[in-house]
This record gives sequence, structure tokens and C-alpha cells, in this order.
Amino acid sequence: MARLHVDIALRWGDFDAYAHVNNAEMLHLLEEARIQAFWRRDEGTGPGAATAVLDARPGAEMIALIARQEVEYLLPIPYMRAPLDIELWVGRIGGASIEVCYEVFSPVGVTPRMLFTKAATTLVMVTAATGKPQRVPAELRAAWSSYVEEPVAFTKRG
Amino acid sequence: MARLHVDIALRWGDFDAYAHVNNAEMLHLLEEARIQAFWRRDEGTGPGAATAVLDARPGAEMIALIARQEVEYLLPIPYMRAPLDIELWVGRIGGASIEVCYEVFSPVGVTPRMLFTKAATTLVMVTAATGKPQRVPAELRAAWSSYVEEPVAFTKRG
Amino acid sequence: MARLHVDIALRWGDFDAYAHVNNAEMLHLLEEARIQAFWRRDEGTGPGAATAVLDARPGAEMIALIARQEVEYLLPIPYMRAPLDIELWVGRIGGASIEVCYEVFSPVGVTPRMLFTKAATTLVMVTAATGKPQRVPAELRAAWSSYVEEPVAFTKRG
Amino acid sequence: MARLHVDIALRWGDFDAYAHVNNAEMLHLLEEARIQAFWRRDEGTGPGAATAVLDARPGAEMIALIARQEVEYLLPIPYMRAPLDIELWVGRIGGASIEVCYEVFSPVGVTPRMLFTKAATTLVMVTAATGKPQRVPAELRAAWSSYVEEPVAFTKRG
Repeated sequence: MARLHVDIALRWGDFDAYAHVNNAEMLHLLEEARIQAFWRRDEGTGPGAATAVLDARPGAEMIALIARQEVEYLLPIPYMRAPLDIELWVGRIGGASIEVCYEVFSPVGVTPRMLFTKAATTLVMVTAATGKPQRVPAELRAAWSSYVEEPVAFTKRG
Repeated sequence: MARLHVDIALRWGDFDAYAHVNNAEMLHLLEEARIQAFWRRDEGTGPGAATAVLDARPGAEMIALIARQEVEYLLPIPYMRAPLDIELWVGRIGGASIEVCYEVFSPVGVTPRMLFTKAATTLVMVTAATGKPQRVPAELRAAWSSYVEEPVAFTKRG
Repeated sequence: MARLHVDIALRWGDFDAYAHVNNAEMLHLLEEARIQAFWRRDEGTGPGAATAVLDARPGAEMIALIARQEVEYLLPIPYMRAPLDIELWVGRIGGASIEVCYEVFSPVGVTPRMLFTKAATTLVMVTAATGKPQRVPAELRAAWSSYVEEPVAFTKRG
Repeated sequence: MARLHVDIALRWGDFDAYAHVNNAEMLHLLEEARIQAFWRRDEGTGPGAATAVLDARPGAEMIALIARQEVEYLLPIPYMRAPLDIELWVGRIGGASIEVCYEVFSPVGVTPRMLFTKAATTLVMVTAATGKPQRVPAELRAAWSSYVEEPVAFTKRG
């Protein structure tokens, strides 16, 4: 069971008038974790993670559109300065789609460790010019294969 | 089958570098639709909708925390100036929780009408001071009872 | 002395953990006011304001880049549901640039009327493909000429 | 001449439909740089910078309200993954106010180094409970004194 760990710094702007991380801003945090884990780095800024193979830059030939997201907010996230510890893995790789799964934990070193949020995002690979789905490239399947495990177990579905 | 209709104006800041409404910003749009439909208006600014009975102001005794969200992004939303037409209803009222359902449509008057997004949010009523769940007040059950129908049918679950 | 009046609805996400409109989000509100006042509407959604002549859509030949902004935050903006009443005018039209001025007031009908914020934005017209400044088109000068008055008077410069 | 250097990671959500960092989001980046430089860290997460003495947590006795901001956007900031290199210093310390100055540069190691943005923020210290200005504490004056230099030189004022 292998998971990627990504540290994501909170911003003051992520908090709402209840002084908790806002529910919509959580999706921006997951977006950043996903990009850190799976998207290609700038040229010339180091080798990057072995899993960072997707090209999301405006102008890329293939883009990953978001088809679906599911989020369980288990505990409110209070104001803190240390970065969240986000675990990511791949729940499924289909023909043209990938399910990215997340568990969002308290910062490394904080005890007891708290699980704030569980989530999953389904990405569909499409040709940017046409919007048509295309097969998940073999390069991605290979790069991500060691991070495939059971999808996140949601417990709050109605 | 009764649904509330709320017009939600897009902002330039809702669009990302693909020139589509960003996936996380969609949750801010649903948040605004939910507030328009169900939260109490400022004093002195008119009677408001009969369903607008929740008090979300910082300092309120009871607040509605978000426990869960599920979103299906069916079509990318391109840049447009006219407001989205968001339909809302209540999928379930439980002891301490409420499921708000949404379908996000193209602006009124645009043909053909397009369904961009389907979503559901589970809210849990809690006492602000303690964070403990509390029973959905009878006033809310009464105000919202005519907008209860089947929960949104999601089709993209893995 | 003619000014444009634009109503801008606040969103829950505009408020930060102090329960005030966040300083950066204020620029998003000004952005929306500016777009309402000066940017062309979607085709087919009515005649729009006589001043709404700029084309900001991704893909437009000329775009307006922001060169400078100055903002004085006079009073914190508390949580409210009614839209802010934003007055806009043009402080200067130069060769390739335009200064848009703003005063952000409490919602129409609230007494006493409060001035929350004063601001100015300098826009430079550039050719999208090259990024080179280009002359403010005659059509814009004509459309905006009746809204030119003295630039906003800032009082807090060091 | 001493300046603080803070690395601020960009997020995908900072970019707008022109694929540049949005003008309002720039203020969120400055906000994060300011907090990194001058606000107290969480207890138990290390000593922090000698300048990080302000307490911004909701519930703090003294808060720093933003009275004024001025920003010159010199170059559009394209999509990049490496963090911006933001230099900060104090332009003035008055009775109850402080002017924080910024220059926002390309990521460390990118050549040629580019100056994207210059900005200044005036903060006023107020008692949270009353909103009344209060004197900048001696502790802050001492902690920040070695980072006081000339205010940023703006060149685009009308």
C-alpha cells in the first residue's frame, strides 16, 4: 500500500467567517495536492516526482477535465500555519479516466494525528482541441501503477 | 415536484486558465445558491423567500456545517455574462441533517437549455458554541417541506 | 458630474476569518463592477449599458491589462446580504491607458450611507497576440466621455 | 539595506482566463508573504523568524487592519510551478501604522531575474474588541527595526 504525501500550505484566504477552512477552498487544496503529485514540473527546476507526468499547462495537447468529486468533511480545520499533510493515491484507472483519492491530515508532527477530510476526484483525459476523451497514456499507467489501491471508503452517502 | 430557482452571477475570478469555471469555484456558486434559497435575509431588506429561514451570520446560535458534497461536472462552463440558473431542492431531511440538491443550468433564455452540473450537499445543524449536532428545527422542516423530492440521481459513481 | 452605479452582490467566500470582506477580495468586487460597467455583454442578452464596449472574452484581439491599483479601505465591510452600491467613473484617458475610479458604498436604502472603500485602477490596452500597448480606440473614448471627471482623491498616501 | 525573502507557491486557482496571475489574487500572495514574514507561527512548530511577532489568529487582542494598498503590475506572471521570490521590508513605522513594502520576483534560480510587481500595504494596529487604533507595540518596533528602509518607489502614479 503506497501513498504519496504532499504538504499543502494553507492561506489566510482559505478561511471563512467561521474561521474554518471553507468547503469550496478545500477543493483548491486538493487541486494543489493533485498537481504537486501528478503534474509535470517546470523545465529546469529539478527532476520532480516519478509520478509527475501530466502536462497541465495552458496549450498542452491533452488536458484532464474533472468529471466528478466527492468530499466528506469529517472535522472543521481551524486556523493553523503549518501545512496540511495530504495523502494521495489512485483508486481506479479506467479507459479514459482516473480516480484520484485523498485523505487530508493534520500537519506532520501534530499529535494526535487528525483526519480532516476524505475525497475523490474523477479525471477524464480529453484532447484539448476537441474535448473528446482519449485513452490514458501508457506512460501515465506505468508511472502511477505503484500507487493504485482501493478507492477511498465513503461513509456518509445517504 | 417543486424546485427553487436562483440566478447566480458568474465572476471573472471563477474562470481558470482553461477559460472554464474552475471546479472548486463551482462549490462557491452552489454555496451562494444555497444561501439565497435558504438563509435569512438582512433585516429591513424585504420579505425574502419563504424558505429563507436559516441564520448563517457569524454569531448565530446554530450553524450549518457541511458534512459531505458530491458534484458531477457534465459540461465545462465557458465565459458568459448572464447568470446561471440553479435549481435547488431538498433530497432528505434527517434528524440533524439536510441534503440540498442542485442542478446548474445555462442562463434563462439560452436555447437549447444545458445542464452543466449536478450536485448535493449534506448540512449538519450544530450548536455554534459546542459543535454538537442538534435537531433540525420544526420551523425549517415546515418552511422547506414543499421542496422535498427525490435526491439528485448521480450516474458517475465508480 | 456623471457616475455609473453598479450593484455588486457579496459572496460568503468574500469574508475572511475576521468576518470582514477580505482586502484582496475587494479587488474581485471592483473587477466585477468594472466589467459590468465597461465590458460588452453576451450576444443576445439585451442592449446593455452604452458604456459596455470593451471585449474581454478570452480570444479577443485587444485586452486591457491592469498596470496599477490603489485602494483605501476606510471602513471594514461586515457580513450583509444586500449588494454593495459601487460608483464608477473615468479619472483619465491617456494614449493607451485609462484610469477607472471607484467609490464603494453601503447598499442602496441603508441609512446612513457609508463609504467603505475608494480605489483606482489603471488599465493599459494591449494587442493580445503581442502584448504591445495600443491606442485607446475612438469608440471607447466616445462611449466613456460623459463619465470622465476628477480622479479619486486619495488621502492616505505616506 | 536588509530585506526579508519569502517563497510563495502559486496555485492553479491564482490564474485567470488569460492564463496570468489575476490582479486580485496578487493581493492574496502579498498577504501570505506578509503573514510568513511578520506573523507569529503556531506554538510548537519551531522558533520562526525573528520578525514573526504579530498575532493574527481570530481571537487575538490586537489585529492589523489594512488601510491602504498600492500595486504596480509590471509584467504579467505566466503559469509556473516554482514559487515566487517576494522581498519584503518596512517603509515606515508610524504611531499606530506600518507600511509593508514588497517586490515580487521570478523564482530563485530563474535567469534573467524578473521584477513582476511592486506593492505597499499600510496596516493600522487596532484593538479587536473596539476597532480603535493603538500604538505599534515596542516589541514590534524592535523586531522590525533592521528591515526599515526607503518605501517602494512607485512610478505609475497619474
